[in-house]
Amino acid sequence: MDHTMKNRFIALYVENDVGVLAKVSGLFSGKSYNLQSLTVGMTERDDVSRMTICVSSDDVTFEQIKKQLNSMVEVIKVLDLTCVPVCMKEILYAKIKNLDHDGMDAVFRIAETFRVRVKDIGIDSLILECMQTERKNNELVALLKQQFHNKVEIVRGGPVAIESISTTDSK
Amino acid sequence: MDHTMKNRFIALYVENDVGVLAKVSGLFSGKSYNLQSLTVGMTERDDVSRMTICVSSDDVTFEQIKKQLNSMVEVIKVLDLTCVPVCMKEILYAKIKNLDHDGMDAVFRIAETFRVRVKDIGIDSLILECMQTERKNNELVALLKQQFHNKVEIVRGGPVAIESISTTDSK
Repeated sequence: MDHTMKNRFIALYVENDVGVLAKVSGLFSGKSYNLQSLTVGMTERDDVSRMTICVSSDDVTFEQIKKQLNSMVEVIKVLDLTCVPVCMKEILYAKIKNLDHDGMDAVFRIAETFRVRVKDIGIDSLILECMQTERKNNELVALLKQQFHNKVEIVRGGPVAIESISTTDSK
Repeated sequence: MDHTMKNRFIALYVENDVGVLAKVSGLFSGKSYNLQSLTVGMTERDDVSRMTICVSSDDVTFEQIKKQLNSMVEVIKVLDLTCVPVCMKEILYAKIKNLDHDGMDAVFRIAETFRVRVKDIGIDSLILECMQTERKNNELVALLKQQFHNKVEIVRGGPVAIESISTTDSK
């Protein structure tokens, strides 16, 4: 058993009903689990939603969480994505305002280096649109905050994940 | 006042506390509001999270929802994104399994047409990774389901949105 806190990922298939989100988030807040992010979206079935949940916990707590999620009647399937190969990305928008000429140049250079798109531009402001791993997004946010401080506005979705082919291939 | 049901978008700045998600989703389930999607992620401030919420409602109900969100102590700001220009994208993963040779060809042609990336490949399966508007993602899902039926597995995050420069520019 590992007692260190680390980020763990769960994919949760649930019945597509608004009450389920309240129940799942209520479980995390009621037990004071350290929820990092939660994304809920549609699947190929109209009656089933899928959540990608990131939680920071040790091994013991994580086993508890999975057990409690499994015991909810609205939960169809709990997948532990922590140790399997996944495709996982996160959307990030960064708006940088009140830039002078050098500032604009700097943002364009950062965009080029991180291979993110300048999605919108004004006289003294820019919006970067990125779909990258959470870690890469963290690096980008740290860099922007270091260079532009309170000129930066960040909007992030949570990570969205699917198991890679190698782990689920029908062969 | 418009009494037709349509999709409306809210950006919600809240205190970064797990209990807030339970309270917000509890509001939607308690009043049986028609929540379409919810994404919660970090902002430039460690103590503030931002949610992008999509709800299907008429004008009267939507005004109620905004008022009730505004009255929650943990809510810092409610932005109505329905009628302002925004940058808004959604992550979608589509896994298509048990494909024969023609099926693989067909998926590659769809990927090329929709300009989405083939992210992973196995002997008879593929993963497409897309960051597009919700509407474009809906079209892609409809097409894949029509062609490949129950061979398709879909994972979607909710839409993530930021106000365009034109509406917020400091000029």
